[in-house]
Amino acid sequence: MSTLREESLNMHKEKQGKLGVHSKVQVQNARDLSLAYSPGVAEPCREIHADESKAYDYTMKGNLVAVISDGTAVLGLGNIGPKAAMPVMEGKALLFKTFADVDAFPICLDTTDADKIVEAVKLLEPTFGGVNLEDIAAPKCFEIEERLRKVCNIPIFHDDQHGTAIVTASGLLNALKLVDKRIGEIRVVVNGSGAAGVAIVKLLLHMGVKDVILCDTKGIIYEGRLVGMNPFKEEMAYITNKEQIVGTLGDALVGADVFVGVSAAGAVTKDMVRSMNRDPIIFAMANPMPEIMPEEAKEAGALVIGTGRSDFPNQVNNVLAFPGIFRGALDVRAKEINEEMKLAAVYAIAELITDEELHADYVIPNPFDPRVAACVAEAVAKAAIETGVAQKIRDVAKTKGI
Amino acid sequence: MSTLREESLNMHKEKQGKLGVHSKVQVQNARDLSLAYSPGVAEPCREIHADESKAYDYTMKGNLVAVISDGTAVLGLGNIGPKAAMPVMEGKALLFKTFADVDAFPICLDTTDADKIVEAVKLLEPTFGGVNLEDIAAPKCFEIEERLRKVCNIPIFHDDQHGTAIVTASGLLNALKLVDKRIGEIRVVVNGSGAAGVAIVKLLLHMGVKDVILCDTKGIIYEGRLVGMNPFKEEMAYITNKEQIVGTLGDALVGADVFVGVSAAGAVTKDMVRSMNRDPIIFAMANPMPEIMPEEAKEAGALVIGTGRSDFPNQVNNVLAFPGIFRGALDVRAKEINEEMKLAAVYAIAELITDEELHADYVIPNPFDPRVAACVAEAVAKAAIETGVAQKIRDVAKTKGI
Repeated sequence: MSTLREESLNMHKEKQGKLGVHSKVQVQNARDLSLAYSPGVAEPCREIHADESKAYDYTMKGNLVAVISDGTAVLGLGNIGPKAAMPVMEGKALLFKTFADVDAFPICLDTTDADKIVEAVKLLEPTFGGVNLEDIAAPKCFEIEERLRKVCNIPIFHDDQHGTAIVTASGLLNALKLVDKRIGEIRVVVNGSGAAGVAIVKLLLHMGVKDVILCDTKGIIYEGRLVGMNPFKEEMAYITNKEQIVGTLGDALVGADVFVGVSAAGAVTKDMVRSMNRDPIIFAMANPMPEIMPEEAKEAGALVIGTGRSDFPNQVNNVLAFPGIFRGALDVRAKEINEEMKLAAVYAIAELITDEELHADYVIPNPFDPRVAACVAEAVAKAAIETGVAQKIRDVAKTKGI
Repeated sequence: MSTLREESLNMHKEKQGKLGVHSKVQVQNARDLSLAYSPGVAEPCREIHADESKAYDYTMKGNLVAVISDGTAVLGLGNIGPKAAMPVMEGKALLFKTFADVDAFPICLDTTDADKIVEAVKLLEPTFGGVNLEDIAAPKCFEIEERLRKVCNIPIFHDDQHGTAIVTASGLLNALKLVDKRIGEIRVVVNGSGAAGVAIVKLLLHMGVKDVILCDTKGIIYEGRLVGMNPFKEEMAYITNKEQIVGTLGDALVGADVFVGVSAAGAVTKDMVRSMNRDPIIFAMANPMPEIMPEEAKEAGALVIGTGRSDFPNQVNNVLAFPGIFRGALDVRAKEINEEMKLAAVYAIAELITDEELHADYVIPNPFDPRVAACVAEAVAKAAIETGVAQKIRDVAKTKGI
């Protein structure tokens, strides 16, 4: 760890962060100045004033995403505040640029108040073509995203929710092929009721999973539970757990087909895996230590195992989703990222792996697979057009691999 | 004009605006990813969490300025709104980068309410090393800047006020040498009581001018005037016009040594120039048409004439000031840009022209003089250190010419 620590600190310090702003046009003489600035700059201003949609043509808006955080739920570090969150937001922006040529700009807000965050993002809207919310604590993050989706005319996407959900769902689709189970017939147990857990539940239900049980540190979430609830968990209790069973995570897993963990190291034991239905599928995504180590899960009979780590097979890495999703949304000037666009991303990621290539250690593409962002972008753009949220239809996707 | 119009529109459209975000580090494999993002990125986060000043070391904050507008007073176009203002703000950011290697990012806010602008900028503070306010209408701009200076710990600088004032003052210092007059003995008439006019008055008084008269469209501003006043003009009436004269701009100019116009085309006639004291100095900065054309002013006896235009001598161009001012402020992590730092910029710009070089058509350096930003930055950084607002003393200025 000390090498990684030193290397990371040196790398961040060497160039004073990881991002810069660059000029796409040159200003070397009075003529350049008169075009890029006064008086020539008045021309695109007038055009946009007459037709606001031209902001996409004449400014950076059309390729620009704000990566916005309040620093309340940063990686595994928790509520470290806006200044300390900046390296993560710069990193996120770096990934947008690297994987999908999206200009992304990190903004850490000096407030943890949901109303103020909503207002600030709304005030920032004219500048950006989309907003990626990041590392905002649950349950506040749900309310913030919902409110912003209502008031903004550009895509609002909380990656900790949907990015994780989309990649997990892709892996699950492929894993189900391997174990020959149908999505409508499986029971999925999700452990962790934070941003990712809630989004995973919703996405899986939308995809046709009929039996989902959500657990948190207090055990199974059910209607009428009295401890550790909030309005979002009440909603979860209502839409999940069709038999309204009560008990521990262990109780939930008995007979389950799939475990999805976005919780904490060691939450799952070998015995729990043994209690599951045949050919268990395990996505144990706690970081840095998963809910159960892959070798243990395998010993207990798990057939497909994914984690959040790059040193095990089947890494659930959001970078497979968010760059291509925003690339696709920006390319068609989508007003939002809707459920159909998210589903399109799920299938695009899953289908990158052919039936011939598919095996237990390869249900999720490699994060550096250069095809990913372009495929996701194309699918997302298509879904945006089909669902009527695209404001423009482009012939050529701008997407590029790394 | 149609060529400029077409060229400008093409240039803005070709690359979808003028700015991009670029990566200063590469992410090509899992190792890169683990340094720039999870898990390595946690290290600079932890360092900043323990010591917030390290945000300047590990993030882009230390070289990053927000260019913030509400789009209410854009160039000569007026209140065109935040989206239409973006090309100007991108242009401004471009100049920051080109002239002083400052990473500047344009933000146009979707509000014209002073309270909301103040709150939004305060919320954005953690991300940035400084804020350049731009094209915000007077008199609201004064209040916004004042309030932000009080609540923020980073430099807040409204360029329409101070940039123009600084460059005008530089030109005036050099012009006074040519006409052999002392700054404490001149009468200056400023026409236009917007952002620039008010800032020019304040800066000139601070520099030792004792007799300033400010005019607006209603004529001379004096204590007790009833029409077209606001709290800022009341303050102006109190600190200017020591004889409390009443009348028109023409009345004010009789016997004056200097005319400074930040008003409208044609405000000054040849007869008015003839009524001034010997060797009149004229800065006629209305755009695109000055208060009096240089050839007319010269015919009427003016000795030194400056305008806002690049096609006449002595262009008062803010680009001589703001890039170097922020470069200097960022280099020493200044908490503010105070009066001493502004004065240092005035003298640095003026002193670039030696006594041998000085003549009536060369009292202000050329905007593309590659020495300007570095000289201004050095002087501003020195003044910041001397006045105790610098948080760091750097050995080597990062400034570069273009």
